[in-house]
Amino acid sequence: MTYTTISHEIEDGVLTVTLDRPDQLNSFTPQMADELEQTFREVNDDDTVRAVIVTGAGRAFCAGMDLTADGNVFGLDETMSPSLADMGRLDDPALIAGVRDTGGRVTLAIHDCRKPVIAAINGAAVGIGATMTLAMDARIVSSKARIGFVFGRIGIVPEAASSWFLPRIVGLPAALDLVLSADILDAQSTVDVGLAQGPHEPEELLTAARELADRWTKGRSPVAVALARQMLRRNAAQDHPVEAHRIDSLAMWHTSLGDGKEGVTAFLEKRDPEFTGRASQMPDFYDEWLQR
Amino acid sequence: MTYTTISHEIEDGVLTVTLDRPDQLNSFTPQMADELEQTFREVNDDDTVRAVIVTGAGRAFCAGMDLTADGNVFGLDETMSPSLADMGRLDDPALIAGVRDTGGRVTLAIHDCRKPVIAAINGAAVGIGATMTLAMDARIVSSKARIGFVFGRIGIVPEAASSWFLPRIVGLPAALDLVLSADILDAQSTVDVGLAQGPHEPEELLTAARELADRWTKGRSPVAVALARQMLRRNAAQDHPVEAHRIDSLAMWHTSLGDGKEGVTAFLEKRDPEFTGRASQMPDFYDEWLQR
Amino acid sequence: MTYTTISHEIEDGVLTVTLDRPDQLNSFTPQMADELEQTFREVNDDDTVRAVIVTGAGRAFCAGMDLTADGNVFGLDETMSPSLADMGRLDDPALIAGVRDTGGRVTLAIHDCRKPVIAAINGAAVGIGATMTLAMDARIVSSKARIGFVFGRIGIVPEAASSWFLPRIVGLPAALDLVLSADILDAQSTVDVGLAQGPHEPEELLTAARELADRWTKGRSPVAVALARQMLRRNAAQDHPVEAHRIDSLAMWHTSLGDGKEGVTAFLEKRDPEFTGRASQMPDFYDEWLQR
Repeated sequence: MTYTTISHEIEDGVLTVTLDRPDQLNSFTPQMADELEQTFREVNDDDTVRAVIVTGAGRAFCAGMDLTADGNVFGLDETMSPSLADMGRLDDPALIAGVRDTGGRVTLAIHDCRKPVIAAINGAAVGIGATMTLAMDARIVSSKARIGFVFGRIGIVPEAASSWFLPRIVGLPAALDLVLSADILDAQSTVDVGLAQGPHEPEELLTAARELADRWTKGRSPVAVALARQMLRRNAAQDHPVEAHRIDSLAMWHTSLGDGKEGVTAFLEKRDPEFTGRASQMPDFYDEWLQR
Repeated sequence: MTYTTISHEIEDGVLTVTLDRPDQLNSFTPQMADELEQTFREVNDDDTVRAVIVTGAGRAFCAGMDLTADGNVFGLDETMSPSLADMGRLDDPALIAGVRDTGGRVTLAIHDCRKPVIAAINGAAVGIGATMTLAMDARIVSSKARIGFVFGRIGIVPEAASSWFLPRIVGLPAALDLVLSADILDAQSTVDVGLAQGPHEPEELLTAARELADRWTKGRSPVAVALARQMLRRNAAQDHPVEAHRIDSLAMWHTSLGDGKEGVTAFLEKRDPEFTGRASQMPDFYDEWLQR
Repeated sequence: MTYTTISHEIEDGVLTVTLDRPDQLNSFTPQMADELEQTFREVNDDDTVRAVIVTGAGRAFCAGMDLTADGNVFGLDETMSPSLADMGRLDDPALIAGVRDTGGRVTLAIHDCRKPVIAAINGAAVGIGATMTLAMDARIVSSKARIGFVFGRIGIVPEAASSWFLPRIVGLPAALDLVLSADILDAQSTVDVGLAQGPHEPEELLTAARELADRWTKGRSPVAVALARQMLRRNAAQDHPVEAHRIDSLAMWHTSLGDGKEGVTAFLEKRDPEFTGRASQMPDFYDEWLQR
């Protein structure tokens, strides 16, 4: 696939994805949704990549949905009238074309990703520019970052599964306030509310993001990283800790016979471990677990 | 309905509900439960109201259940012996009369409300006076506010579905401490623990509450406000973000063909939008969603 | 049962459990798992105990799994290959022997406990030494405490159902950072991130833990304490507050005819209540509720 709305750069195992429509403030289009979704699906099988950073070209991170394209900016088929029952079939082609939220296709792919994903927010991140970052594992802001869940200003609702992610990040009261107020926060305010970390000087933003990517993944077992990331995202959403106990038991069994064996040996021999596990080959239970 | 334990005042689209038994420190009775539940059900169909403020008359917000009524202050039928199986039928008249927690009837109505609800806590809020505010969208305190989950002091348990709401507001460790200690917090402590915002001077409390109500709802689409409020409350409680994605897709589809169309047009024309949606007429999927 | 890896001391209704292998920094073994699980199961029926404190002998709290025992430190049967389907039967003896995470057996017992459990963290708490404390109701640290979720350093994953507990304590972003970084935090950092309270001078740690145990349980109804503790742990994990409303109604009904009747009478008579309820005899619905 040739990317036209984003660009890819891999350096020392870290893939930097740049939203790359600077003249349009990197505003979001269905094409950008397709390219981002494909990026986060394909990176699962690319063992040369251990972490992903997402940033914006030019002065914005992402100024939201591109509202200038035409009158029907949401790409919806007005002849449809979807219902809760229809929405059980998310893979229905007519539904996908007419109804499925494009931002949600991207954030579900980020949620399922086997590699940690870090937002390096260099400027304005509003609408889908804000909500897409909620599915990532950290949001690092430069002093020029601005984040706003501005949907209410134009009579629509937050999307990209943000109502699932935002209360997990800032708690329910702050989530209600951020969405109902539709305010645009400056960099320090995003940190104060618990949404992001920083702020950093603009020229140091990507360095800070790479340091975090390294701290999380350099020299680590990619299998253990992918499992731990999903365990924290999925198990806490279950109604009882016994569900975590089931997954823990399976994940511990598989890792302890894989990279964990080398890890313990290296620990006892007081040397660095040399892990050989690959995230492209996860334990058998992994796909079944993610599909449920 | 003529209210005898509360009073209603509507000004510029904001309904102020005053708990109005000042000589009894606005203590809670089954009659007050009925009047509050009816208030929060009926306001859904009243398009003249865009937000609700709840406060107390006199020096207290609500001093808890009225324990002076008679020996059987919980209004329970001692001949019953309800079980988990019985509680599947919450609409059984015998259960309602004998067993259903009156505070929970009120907080479930607040949870389901189509309008944001703001607690303006002017004095003591203990027992049900504290737990009823947890279902609201914000708690604003004056310097005279005192909040306490004091149930343990008299050998009973927190109610009004507070065990569902409180950890979402302050996290599990603080929730356990507030309930197990049964402490009564002063105003600043309620802010420090993340339970409330403020404190404000007593004479400025209602102004602060009205400013928040305006910031959240003035000039906004009532349909988009009601949808966003429920999305944040319901979707994060699901076990996977795909459930949020389903609702996002439906809510975005419906709003983007309704007030969202005007919102985008107004944005592109650089003018204020004029929304025409009414919360009394929600999209088809809304009731089905709330009933599940 | 004679304990060989831990010791028990009961004083004024508070059971102090000391992890007692100081020469091995109280490192965790399958025997310690058995003894801890039995402790937290048996204390439910011991009405002389109203709260539990867990601390470590010597300079560590618990230095994690004992990796020096033999090559197969996880106690796993390599001939097994468990699956998600198998894990539906957590009581299968072969699974228990070969696969079930030993840390999870302990934390599920703590989660189910009828008495509040307080970690008094006197030194290093890493690996299972860190995760076992997440199921407790509070973590109090001395200035010498160190807490680390270090699993990733040896190519394995966090266990003991920690992925269910940790985001409830510190939120999802901090949980991801603590686990992916595998950092070991000093005492002040554990407080700053919301993981623990303190720090206290080492010689004052147990006094602080006992004060908290007293504040939560002294003079209280053991039945109401056990119910409130479980309500906060279980109800918030359900997908709708109506589940809390069901349990509230049952718990309020049962307590108000038991210790609550004495509590209200004492309140009206302006005297201290004398509760007679016993945690060894919980209401009928309790076991059914915990089994689901």
